[in-house]
Amino acid sequence: MTSFLAALASSFPPGQLATDQLQLAAHAADQGPVLEHYLPVAVVFAERVEDVQAVMRLASEHAVSVVVRGAGTGVSGGAHATEGCVVLSLERMNRILEIHSEDEIARVEPGVVNADLNAAVAEYGLMYAPDPASYRTSTIGGNIATNAGGLRCAKYGVTRESVLALDVVLADGTLIHTGHRTFKGVAGYDLTGLFVGSEGTLGIVVGATVRLRYLPTAVETIAAFFPEFTTAAAGVLAVGKARVQPAIMELLDGNTLVQLDEEQGSDLRSRGGALLLIQTDGFAARTEAEIIRRELSALGGTITTEDHEEAVRLVELRRHSRGAEVDDDFRVGEDGAVPRSQLVHYIAELQRIAAVHGVGLKVVAHAGDGNLHPTFWVGAGEAGKVPALNAALDESIDVGLALGGTITGEHGVGQYKVRWLPREQREEVLELQRRIKALFDPQALLNPGKALPEAIDA
Amino acid sequence: MTSFLAALASSFPPGQLATDQLQLAAHAADQGPVLEHYLPVAVVFAERVEDVQAVMRLASEHAVSVVVRGAGTGVSGGAHATEGCVVLSLERMNRILEIHSEDEIARVEPGVVNADLNAAVAEYGLMYAPDPASYRTSTIGGNIATNAGGLRCAKYGVTRESVLALDVVLADGTLIHTGHRTFKGVAGYDLTGLFVGSEGTLGIVVGATVRLRYLPTAVETIAAFFPEFTTAAAGVLAVGKARVQPAIMELLDGNTLVQLDEEQGSDLRSRGGALLLIQTDGFAARTEAEIIRRELSALGGTITTEDHEEAVRLVELRRHSRGAEVDDDFRVGEDGAVPRSQLVHYIAELQRIAAVHGVGLKVVAHAGDGNLHPTFWVGAGEAGKVPALNAALDESIDVGLALGGTITGEHGVGQYKVRWLPREQREEVLELQRRIKALFDPQALLNPGKALPEAIDA
Ligand SMILES: Cc1cc2nc3c(=O)[nH]c(=O)nc-3n(C[C@H](O)[C@H](O)[C@H](O)COP(=O)(O)OP(=O)(O)OC[C@H]3O[C@@H](n4cnc5c(N)ncnc54)[C@H](O)[C@@H]3O)c2cc1C
Ligand SMILES: Cc1cc2nc3c(=O)[nH]c(=O)nc-3n(C[C@H](O)[C@H](O)[C@H](O)COP(=O)(O)OP(=O)(O)OC[C@H]3O[C@@H](n4cnc5c(N)ncnc54)[C@H](O)[C@@H]3O)c2cc1C
Repeated sequence: MTSFLAALASSFPPGQLATDQLQLAAHAADQGPVLEHYLPVAVVFAERVEDVQAVMRLASEHAVSVVVRGAGTGVSGGAHATEGCVVLSLERMNRILEIHSEDEIARVEPGVVNADLNAAVAEYGLMYAPDPASYRTSTIGGNIATNAGGLRCAKYGVTRESVLALDVVLADGTLIHTGHRTFKGVAGYDLTGLFVGSEGTLGIVVGATVRLRYLPTAVETIAAFFPEFTTAAAGVLAVGKARVQPAIMELLDGNTLVQLDEEQGSDLRSRGGALLLIQTDGFAARTEAEIIRRELSALGGTITTEDHEEAVRLVELRRHSRGAEVDDDFRVGEDGAVPRSQLVHYIAELQRIAAVHGVGLKVVAHAGDGNLHPTFWVGAGEAGKVPALNAALDESIDVGLALGGTITGEHGVGQYKVRWLPREQREEVLELQRRIKALFDPQALLNPGKALPEAIDA
Repeated sequence: MTSFLAALASSFPPGQLATDQLQLAAHAADQGPVLEHYLPVAVVFAERVEDVQAVMRLASEHAVSVVVRGAGTGVSGGAHATEGCVVLSLERMNRILEIHSEDEIARVEPGVVNADLNAAVAEYGLMYAPDPASYRTSTIGGNIATNAGGLRCAKYGVTRESVLALDVVLADGTLIHTGHRTFKGVAGYDLTGLFVGSEGTLGIVVGATVRLRYLPTAVETIAAFFPEFTTAAAGVLAVGKARVQPAIMELLDGNTLVQLDEEQGSDLRSRGGALLLIQTDGFAARTEAEIIRRELSALGGTITTEDHEEAVRLVELRRHSRGAEVDDDFRVGEDGAVPRSQLVHYIAELQRIAAVHGVGLKVVAHAGDGNLHPTFWVGAGEAGKVPALNAALDESIDVGLALGGTITGEHGVGQYKVRWLPREQREEVLELQRRIKALFDPQALLNPGKALPEAIDA
């Protein structure tokens, strides 16, 4: 390790290399629950592609693990430091290299913050569609590595659908280019898709060509308050049945409204027990909104005809409804998705599970995609209830899977959910993935222990 | 080989196994140009997943290659028989297993014809969006294996964007399941995406869960005739600049119009030298169509306000504009895509190339995606001009690549385009793909010689 650190020090100026406790600690974990805390041996701040290649060459030579880090907003522990690793931060590689209005694409470095890209392309009447609630801080590279979803993914698709081409540094330092600048292209296997969502375990995204969409001319926001959470969830299906595709369809339960009221001084909870927040956009925004209002009224929803400012504020509130808290031993936010028809049933099940185990529950959902973010919690002083919390969590995962769901809709497996993956995927599918991992990263340097469970006999 | 055929004969009843010349010949090639003609040693008609597994187990044991076949409408030779292969036809596995209106998905066997699925889901107000012009005959399995595009992919995305989960039989006969029934899901690597577009070289798709979209309530069709092809192509950019997303945006050149007139008795060519055919759909179809009409008129287009019947007929004509001819030594249809801003320039280049080499040219394009289908031809009696034809083809590929394009937008590399892939992708990227291929299919049984060029030192 000393020789590795010495090699790093001779390759990077002090401003790009940190080994002080403060910096190590600041880059040791993302926003996910920490199972085992490690400090990295060093943090390298890459400023160009060659820096990333240099780190990987040294890491290969010295057999040191590398944990890539964007903004560290991940919530599955994907960017947690592992034992004896170097953390490779890409936050300084934040240049937008090209915006091409006619080709409707942008080329960016991985550290560009999602909101910065969106601000830059808005001038051209364009948008980068994937908008995780963390869009103000998370990076395009991190979004790609997790295949991030977001609010308007109900209509525009997840990150994968907006990524056309990638520059990737492989474990041995080789730089490759995948994909194409055109919207369509089927030459060769879909390596681009393989890297998207691979959580820093197959290669390091050092550049991306992304597809842009048309910034909608009009947006309509509908806030429908329902007495019960399950009725609000039924509203999601009613909108689908009317064959109207909203851009955003978010569901907030009563406890989330209470929390927002406390944090933001709003009065949402007094208006209902659950809030269904819908945006339509584009040239038919108004027509579609009218149909949706009719459907939701028929279901018993109280539709607030919001004026524009209030509407924008409600969506902003939702974007922050995950709150400022970080998951820990006493509070864990999950991210499963279920088929849309199971939404109502799954939500009822989550309420039952929380009650049985005596733990708190609040839920927000990207309901258009059937993607739920339940948070289970126990009081910070109630260490004795942590086993109940974990039992509730486990049960919620199993019930979601039994309903045809997945353990993670958008946050990724990271480190925290590795133990659940074998409940969703069979051993032969896991083994195929391990072999793909070994093909790309034979020394297992890139983000070890993340995304995939180790082989049973390993 | 005799022992392999004997083993097949003892595993399958005569009705599922053909070895007669007529059947062998009928399954020896798809619609692509034939470089070297081979008859398969046998054709097996699979009727269930177990049949596919049985064929792969026997093929592995006897080291016999397997060429999977859907409807054989491919145009890149992906389904061409290779030396000593068995052709495994999936056309009889054509059951729609489930249509779930609330989940907005369908589960199908691979041999289901695209149009049959669309007819079945239309009853629910849903559609399966990818609609290759071959939709009346091509299969969902073939569409998935080629990541087929289609007319309305400009708005709704290509096949990849509609595939949620797959059942795949691997080379050794193992059956695996990839993906999820939910719209979103990021558990594990994107194996589903890896199989999509892999042209029968990594595994055999024996089942698919596909996402359905809302059948639009309204559709508007705009036919704009332009004197020049390049001006029509400029219309595509003008529509984009207005930030309106049509569902369909197809471009037909003068020679295509002449051919359609001859085949269909229409009078298109007399109305202009190029036709831009646009459909908008959904609740804003009319508003969007009005904006488009205004833009195209400003460019000098003659907009025909078609009545509904004529409009539908024009789109149908376009769907058949590839014509009944099969590519051969004298006529080759290509499939490159270029960034949208290069459309006008590339079309001018194609015209220049055809003129320089003294060969015929006609072009249709999925212009919304920058995906062009130029056909170069020489007269059937002009064998002496075949080298010029091939030189024109090669040059068109190189020019497309130089403009930032790809060699294949939607038809796949198959057998015919293998020689061009190294012009687009560097050796290290090809080598990565060869290693993925070897990982999935160590004996190289599945569709040998397709999709990827052999290693230089192989
Ligand atoms: C308040 C809040 C709201 C959120 N809302 C959403 C949401 O709506 N939707 C959603 O999907 N997620 C959401 N998230 C989770 C998180 O923001 C996303 O996962 C995001 O994509 C992470 O980006 P990042 O730059 O912070 O990446 P990091 O957290 O730094 O890293 C995430 C993972 O990607 C890897 N990685 C990062 N950059 C690269 C790269 N360039 N190449 C290879 N691997 C890399 C890391 O190793 C790690 O495994 C939210 C998080 C918070 C805190
Ligand atoms: C008139 C015409 C118009 C066309 N228009 C379009 C268009 O608009 N867009 C477009 O993309 N294509 C188009 N095509 C090309 C062709 O129709 C598509 O490539 C289609 O997806 C092939 O489907 P298929 O069932 O005929 O497959 P096949 O031709 O039988 O096979 C195609 C490839 O897929 C493999 N394969 C087939 N089934 C499976 C399976 N279940 N598992 C694994 N591998 C499999 C085969 O081995 C082969 O490599 C057109 C073709 C014609 C003749």
